Amino acid sequence: MPTKIIETVPNFSEGRRVEVVQAIVEAVRSTSGGARVLDISSDPDHNRSVLTMAGEEEQIRASILRLFEAALQHIDLRTHRGEHPRLGAVDVVPFVPVKGVAMADCVRLARSLGEEIAGRFQVPVYLYEEAATAEHRRNLAEIRKGEFEGLPRKMKDPLWAPDFGPSEPHPAAGATVIGGREFLIAFNVNLSTADVQIADRIARAIRHSSGGLRYCKAMGVILSERRIAQVSINMVNFKKTPLHRVVEMVKSEAARYGVNVVGSEIVGLVPQDALLAAAGFYLGLEDFHGSQVLENRLAEPGD
Amino acid sequence: MPTKIIETVPNFSEGRRVEVVQAIVEAVRSTSGGARVLDISSDPDHNRSVLTMAGEEEQIRASILRLFEAALQHIDLRTHRGEHPRLGAVDVVPFVPVKGVAMADCVRLARSLGEEIAGRFQVPVYLYEEAATAEHRRNLAEIRKGEFEGLPRKMKDPLWAPDFGPSEPHPAAGATVIGGREFLIAFNVNLSTADVQIADRIARAIRHSSGGLRYCKAMGVILSERRIAQVSINMVNFKKTPLHRVVEMVKSEAARYGVNVVGSEIVGLVPQDALLAAAGFYLGLEDFHGSQVLENRLAEPGD
Repeated sequence: MPTKIIETVPNFSEGRRVEVVQAIVEAVRSTSGGARVLDISSDPDHNRSVLTMAGEEEQIRASILRLFEAALQHIDLRTHRGEHPRLGAVDVVPFVPVKGVAMADCVRLARSLGEEIAGRFQVPVYLYEEAATAEHRRNLAEIRKGEFEGLPRKMKDPLWAPDFGPSEPHPAAGATVIGGREFLIAFNVNLSTADVQIADRIARAIRHSSGGLRYCKAMGVILSERRIAQVSINMVNFKKTPLHRVVEMVKSEAARYGVNVVGSEIVGLVPQDALLAAAGFYLGLEDFHGSQVLENRLAEPGD
Repeated sequence: MPTKIIETVPNFSEGRRVEVVQAIVEAVRSTSGGARVLDISSDPDHNRSVLTMAGEEEQIRASILRLFEAALQHIDLRTHRGEHPRLGAVDVVPFVPVKGVAMADCVRLARSLGEEIAGRFQVPVYLYEEAATAEHRRNLAEIRKGEFEGLPRKMKDPLWAPDFGPSEPHPAAGATVIGGREFLIAFNVNLSTADVQIADRIARAIRHSSGGLRYCKAMGVILSERRIAQVSINMVNFKKTPLHRVVEMVKSEAARYGVNVVGSEIVGLVPQDALLAAAGFYLGLEDFHGSQVLENRLAEPGD
């Protein structure tokens, strides 16, 4: 296993034409010296696909350049329709520090790769989140407002000049948003009630936007088959807002409605550190270090 | 990282002559195609050293043969004194299934390597724990009773004929005990009291020998510098008696003395699964699988 790992989760604007998705994924997967493709997920309603990849910086760089090449060859946003807001053929590319890598490294990668993409493909690039060059450009939703169709006008506004590349959108591929962010854990907590309003109230209590934990987004949903309500959570920085604090707060809020937590689930991937931190909290571990995990010791460079 | 991992923790009878320990360790470490040496710990009072190694079966086999070669060259038990009971120059060699390996594989390895060692070095070999060939030979302490000095007499008893090798001890190297066992986690729980009797009572409540959890050994000790009592625990099968159950039982027993758990520690290495199980229990995870851990996905064979 490489000792320095970056994750990237590029979103591209095709989720209906299976043969196009396959062609793009195959191009990325076969990149020589490229990153490991861990997951592919396409949504026909959104008309959009999400790739999850991980590897060392140079592998990530090679795979993302190949993705742009393939996406620009196959996608024309002038004929693209879908429910999910989008700005470009390759819509957004976040870099996530996973192991032996700092956020600063991901920001540096976002900037240098953003510049290279703008130059090579003539696609305007916006930097977002940790890589943003101004406060009003941190938030992806703000950058994407007006979408592909609104780009020619939006780009005339000096506040929305791109960070790299031409001052007009690429005719078919629009613009791209690139940046650095923390690992996102999709974490759902199931309740002993079918009343979605209770899940909603708990979600409001724990989430940042309504006064709760800083790096927590949440909403109430109903699992109709199991007939239980669920607090559906995005943990956007598990190092600062850890899993155990969210679970304990959900339990405490649920208690006032006479409701229990009946279970939870992690959707997709989770960094080992997030679970070690939960074990450490509940077991009360003092001075524990990840290198005490046997598998980690074996993965360290040899002696 | 290899996909099949066995751990071995051989104990050899030298912990005072630093140059001898170094020579033996260096021989093992430089074994061509050998296992990875993860830890070395020598105790002068015990006059004994413990090596922790891990690797695939063939690597383990090569390293253990090299260890016998080096130990027989340097150690003569006729002049060896120490507080820890011992039977041989290489005293005991357990094989532990860690990843992608079953206990049956470790038992098979113990038997075939035991036979090879007996033949090549003329050292009688006893099989113990999961590899034992009779119930009265499972327990290491029973096999070791009488120690090196008592071996000539003990071996005349048909109940104590060795599993492999000559029917008399090796003159300088005695006999060796080889077997298969589960991973041992050394886990200590610290209490909000300096009264070691409370730690002792809790230890008696949780340990198998006095009515407690099946795969738990425990005793009370005092940490004189920190002036706190500690329940010192050996978890001999964390899959069947998991960490969280031990911690929760210690908390519950401590409460009746008005004592709290103030922390805990894992001494040395711990398999990732033991901590994932604790996180899973406390977070209430449903359908969680180790392959959802990002690092594990990356360590899987490529696609």
